[in-house]
Amino acid sequence: MPLNVYLSGEIHTDWREQIIEGAADLAVEFNSPVTDHDASDDCGVAILGEEPNKYWHDHKGAMVNAIRTRKGIADADVVVVRFGEKYKQWNAAFDAGYASALGKSIIVLNPPEHQHPLKEVHAAALAVAEQPAQVVEILRYVLTGKIPG
Amino acid sequence: MPLNVYLSGEIHTDWREQIIEGAADLAVEFNSPVTDHDASDDCGVAILGEEPNKYWHDHKGAMVNAIRTRKGIADADVVVVRFGEKYKQWNAAFDAGYASALGKSIIVLNPPEHQHPLKEVHAAALAVAEQPAQVVEILRYVLTGKIPG
Amino acid sequence: MPLNVYLSGEIHTDWREQIIEGAADLAVEFNSPVTDHDASDDCGVAILGEEPNKYWHDHKGAMVNAIRTRKGIADADVVVVRFGEKYKQWNAAFDAGYASALGKSIIVLNPPEHQHPLKEVHAAALAVAEQPAQVVEILRYVLTGKIPG
Amino acid sequence: MPLNVYLSGEIHTDWREQIIEGAADLAVEFNSPVTDHDASDDCGVAILGEEPNKYWHDHKGAMVNAIRTRKGIADADVVVVRFGEKYKQWNAAFDAGYASALGKSIIVLNPPEHQHPLKEVHAAALAVAEQPAQVVEILRYVLTGKIPG
Amino acid sequence: MPLNVYLSGEIHTDWREQIIEGAADLAVEFNSPVTDHDASDDCGVAILGEEPNKYWHDHKGAMVNAIRTRKGIADADVVVVRFGEKYKQWNAAFDAGYASALGKSIIVLNPPEHQHPLKEVHAAALAVAEQPAQVVEILRYVLTGKIPG
Amino acid sequence: MPLNVYLSGEIHTDWREQIIEGAADLAVEFNSPVTDHDASDDCGVAILGEEPNKYWHDHKGAMVNAIRTRKGIADADVVVVRFGEKYKQWNAAFDAGYASALGKSIIVLNPPEHQHPLKEVHAAALAVAEQPAQVVEILRYVLTGKIPG
Amino acid sequence: MPLNVYLSGEIHTDWREQIIEGAADLAVEFNSPVTDHDASDDCGVAILGEEPNKYWHDHKGAMVNAIRTRKGIADADVVVVRFGEKYKQWNAAFDAGYASALGKSIIVLNPPEHQHPLKEVHAAALAVAEQPAQVVEILRYVLTGKIPG
Amino acid sequence: MPLNVYLSGEIHTDWREQIIEGAADLAVEFNSPVTDHDASDDCGVAILGEEPNKYWHDHKGAMVNAIRTRKGIADADVVVVRFGEKYKQWNAAFDAGYASALGKSIIVLNPPEHQHPLKEVHAAALAVAEQPAQVVEILRYVLTGKIPG
Repeated sequence: MPLNVYLSGEIHTDWREQIIEGAADLAVEFNSPVTDHDASDDCGVAILGEEPNKYWHDHKGAMVNAIRTRKGIADADVVVVRFGEKYKQWNAAFDAGYASALGKSIIVLNPPEHQHPLKEVHAAALAVAEQPAQVVEILRYVLTGKIPG
Repeated sequence: MPLNVYLSGEIHTDWREQIIEGAADLAVEFNSPVTDHDASDDCGVAILGEEPNKYWHDHKGAMVNAIRTRKGIADADVVVVRFGEKYKQWNAAFDAGYASALGKSIIVLNPPEHQHPLKEVHAAALAVAEQPAQVVEILRYVLTGKIPG
Repeated sequence: MPLNVYLSGEIHTDWREQIIEGAADLAVEFNSPVTDHDASDDCGVAILGEEPNKYWHDHKGAMVNAIRTRKGIADADVVVVRFGEKYKQWNAAFDAGYASALGKSIIVLNPPEHQHPLKEVHAAALAVAEQPAQVVEILRYVLTGKIPG
Repeated sequence: MPLNVYLSGEIHTDWREQIIEGAADLAVEFNSPVTDHDASDDCGVAILGEEPNKYWHDHKGAMVNAIRTRKGIADADVVVVRFGEKYKQWNAAFDAGYASALGKSIIVLNPPEHQHPLKEVHAAALAVAEQPAQVVEILRYVLTGKIPG
Repeated sequence: MPLNVYLSGEIHTDWREQIIEGAADLAVEFNSPVTDHDASDDCGVAILGEEPNKYWHDHKGAMVNAIRTRKGIADADVVVVRFGEKYKQWNAAFDAGYASALGKSIIVLNPPEHQHPLKEVHAAALAVAEQPAQVVEILRYVLTGKIPG
Repeated sequence: MPLNVYLSGEIHTDWREQIIEGAADLAVEFNSPVTDHDASDDCGVAILGEEPNKYWHDHKGAMVNAIRTRKGIADADVVVVRFGEKYKQWNAAFDAGYASALGKSIIVLNPPEHQHPLKEVHAAALAVAEQPAQVVEILRYVLTGKIPG
Repeated sequence: MPLNVYLSGEIHTDWREQIIEGAADLAVEFNSPVTDHDASDDCGVAILGEEPNKYWHDHKGAMVNAIRTRKGIADADVVVVRFGEKYKQWNAAFDAGYASALGKSIIVLNPPEHQHPLKEVHAAALAVAEQPAQVVEILRYVLTGKIPG
Repeated sequence: MPLNVYLSGEIHTDWREQIIEGAADLAVEFNSPVTDHDASDDCGVAILGEEPNKYWHDHKGAMVNAIRTRKGIADADVVVVRFGEKYKQWNAAFDAGYASALGKSIIVLNPPEHQHPLKEVHAAALAVAEQPAQVVEILRYVLTGKIPG
C-alpha cells in the first residue's frame, strides 16, 4: 500500500525537503506545485503571450498552474497543506477545500498562532501538526504501524 | 429555473443584505453561514460542553458550523465568495475550493488590492466582481437575459 | 434550507420522540427505521414466506428493512446515530459507516461509558452528544444561528 | 485480475495470518488496519502531542488511523470484516457500512452466536463465513474457479 | 418519505394495475415503460421516419423508449422487475442490471419455475416475490411499518 | 413524471417556440441559453467592466453564460441540440458532448445536409430529427405513450 | 492504451477462446465469469455449507460469483455480451444493463434470430456482431486503426 | 507524476507529430483517435456489414470509433483539442464538452480567426494556444516547472 502525498502551500521554506528526506525510506510518492515563485507567476504569459493587464497576466498563469495542481490533488491519498507565517496563502486554503470535497485525507501544518483563523480548515483535517517531522511520523505510522519513541 | 445561491465569506459588512435586497424580484433562494460571530465561535461548547483548550473549543464549533456550511454549498447552483479587506479569511478560500471540486459555479467578490493573492481562486471562478451590485446583475442576467443599461 | 434528518440506532427508549418534539418548531423532516422490534424481525417471512432456518428468516427481514434504511440515509442531510446502553447495536455502527461514505453530516448520541469503543465512529462525526436535547440544540443552531442560554 | 483485499475487524486472534498464508499462492494483495493495539490507541498523542482529556486522546488517534483505514477500504475489491467473540467491535461494523456504501464486495466472518445481531451487516454481504479457511476458499474460487473437494 | 417506484418488465398481464390499486392509500409515485406493445415497437419509425431494415426499425424505437426508461429508473427509489411466463424478457433483466449498478432497491417478481435462471438477478435484489400483492405489502411495510395478518 | 428539457444551439430561428408551443399540453419544463445575441456577447463586459482585448471581452461573457448553461444542462432529463444551416455552432456541439458525459438523453435536430459531419454527435444521441414537430412528438410519446397518426 | 475486456454470457461454446486467440497479438487483458457450470452453481454451498432449499443453494452461489463478476465489469473498458441459441440467459442481459449504467462500451454478440427481443440491449451497445471474429476485428481497429481487407 | 494526454480534433496536418516529438523527453503518454480518415469513416461497415443508407453507414462507424475515443478521454489528465482552418469539426467541440463534464484539463489549439465562435469552448479550457510548440511548452512546464527563454 504505497501512498501518494501532495504537498500544498507555502513555498518559502524547506518544509517539503524536510518531509521528503525524512520519509526517504517509506513507500511514498510526493508531488507538489511548481515552487519557483517567478516561473509560477509568469508561466502563462511566457508560453501563451504577454498581457498588458495584470489581472489577465496572473489569470493565464494560474490556469496553467491548475493543470498541475488538479492532477496532483486528484492522484493523492493524502494532501498536506502548509500555512507559513506570512502572506495571504489563499491558494493553500483553496487546495484544502478542494481536497476535502474529493474526500482526501488532509494533514494541516501551521504555526500555533494561526490556530483560530484556520479552525474551519482544521475541521476538515485528520491531523494538525506544527513540524514537518510530525508529518513524517504520521506517514511512517500509516505505512508501518510504528510510533516514535 | 430558480437558482440556489450560497453567500460565503466575510461577515463584517452588509454585502449579503445588498445582494438579497437587490435580487428581491428574482427567483433566487439564498443561504449563508451563521453570521453572528460570537455564536459561530461558541456554538460547539455552548451545546456540547466546555473545553479548557482553545483548539478544541474552536474545533467543536467549526465542526457544528460545518453541518450548515456543507449543506449550503451542496445545495447551491452558485457560490458567491466574498473576501473583505481584513483578516485571514481562510474559511472563504476553503469554501471556494470545496465548491470548485463539486463543480459549482463560483463568483468571487473582492477589493482590487487582493487581486494577486486571489489568482488561484479567481482561476476557479466564472466571474470576479468588486461590488455586490455586480453580483445582483449577474444573477439577473442568468435568470432573465437582461443586461444593465 | 429545511433539513432532512435520519434517526438511526437504538429503538428501546423514547429518544426519537424527544428530538422530534424538541424540534417541532424547526423546518426538519425526520425519518427513522421501523422501530417496532417484532415487525422489523419478522417482516421478511410475514410477507415473502416462512423460512425454517433462522439465518434466512433474519436475512429476508434485514433485506426488506434495507429498502427503508437506504432510502432514509440517502435522503438525509444529517444522520443521528444513537447507541444505547445494551445490545450489540452493530446496525447502528453500520449505518454510521454507510452515512460517512456518502458524506452525510453525522451526530453520534451515546452514554459516556461507550466513548472508547466508539472512537472510530466519533472520528467520522461532526458532533458527539449525550442527550437528545443537545441534538435539538444543534439542529436549532444549524437552522437559525441561535445558541442556548 | 489480481484482487485487493482489506481485512477489517478483530485484532486479537491470528485470523489475518491464516487467510494470508492460505492464500499465499493467489494473486491477492492484502491490507489491514494497524493491529498493534497500543500503537493504534496512542498514535495520535505520541506524534501530535499529549491530551489530558481521554476523549481527545482517543480522537487524535482515531483520526490518524482513519488515514490508513480509508485508503485500505477505498483501494479494496473485497473487504473481509471479522467479528470476534468479545468487545463492542463497532469499528468493524462501521467499516462494513462504509465499504457497503462504496459498493465493495463484503465477506463477513463471525462465530454463529453473533448471527442475529449481525443480520443487517449480513444483508450487505456477498458471503458469510465462520472460518478463515472459508474466506481463502472464496478467494481461490473467485480467482481460479476451483471449488474445494 | 414518499417512494418513487418503477415497474419494469412483462407487459401482457395486469400486474401493474394490481400493485397500483393495492397501494392506492400509500405515498407512492409509480412509473412504467410504455406498455402498449405496438406503440413501443413502432414509435421510432412513426416519428422519425420509416426504415426498410428491421434492425434499424427496432433500433430507432428502442432508443426513443430509452428516454423514458432511463428517466424512470434514475428517479426511482425502488425498481420492481417482473418476469412473466413467456418470451425472452431480456429487457427486464437489462433493467435489473442497470438499476443494480445505480444502487436502486430491487424487488423481483417471477413465477417459481424461473427461479434457477434468475439466480444472478435475485442476487442483486432485496426481495423476491411471486405475487403482486406481496409487492404491495412490502411497500406498505417500508412506508408504515405494518406487516400483514 | 414531468420532464425537464434543455434547448441548446441555434438562436436565429423560432425552433424553440415551435417546440414549446407544440408541447404546451405536456408536463415539460423547458430551459434555454440566453438567446438575445447581443446580450449574450456583451454580458460579461456590461456587468464586470470593459476589456480592450476582444478575446477577454468574449471570455468574460462566455464565463457568465456558462452559469446558466451548466445549470440548464445539469437539471435536464433531455437535451435537444439544434444545428442550423449557418455558422460554426461549436457551442452546440460542446453542449452535446457535455450532456453526453453527464448521461443525459440527447435529441439532435439538424438539416439533412449536416448528417456526415455530425456523425459523432449523432452517435451519442437517442434520436435524430429534422423538424421541431418531431421533437414534440418524441416528448409526447415519452410522457403519454401516444404515437402520431 | 491497452484495453481491458470482459467476456460475459453464454458458456457452452468456445466463443471466448476464439476471441482470445484471435486477439493474441493485441494489448488486451481478458476477464470472464467462471465458465465451469457445475462449479458456478455449487460454489456457495461447497464453501459455505449445504442448503436444503434450492433457492438458497442458488443464492449462495450467485452471491459468491458476483464477487468476480462485479470486479470483472468494473475493471473493463469494453464488455462483450454473448447470447447463445438456448436458455434464458438473463444473467447476460443483467450484465449488459449493469455495464451500461457504469458507462462501459458494450459489444453484443448474438445470432440474428435474437434480434428483436434484444433490441433494448442493442440500444445500449456500440456494436452488434454475429461472429467472434468480428469482435476481434473491432478490438484490432480500436487499438491499431486497421480495418480488415 | 507522468501525464496522460489525449490529442483530439483536426486530422489533416501534422500537429500531433509536432507535439509528440517536442515532448519526447517528457513523461507523457499520448493517445489519439484513429487519424486515417477512410478507415475512420468505414470501420463500422467493413467489420459489421454494409449499410445501403449513408446515415447508418456513418452511424456504425461513429459508434465503433466511440469505443476508442471514450477510453482515450476517460484515461486522460489533459485533453488537447485542435481546431483547423476547414470543415465543421463538430466532433472536436463534442470531445471538448465531453472532457469538460469529466473535469479534464483542456488545452485548445486554434488559429486566431476562430476565436469568437470558440468562446464557449475557450471558457472551459485552462489554456488557449495557437501553435503546437506552445502545447509542448505547457506540458514541459507542468511536468518540470521550466518556462521557455
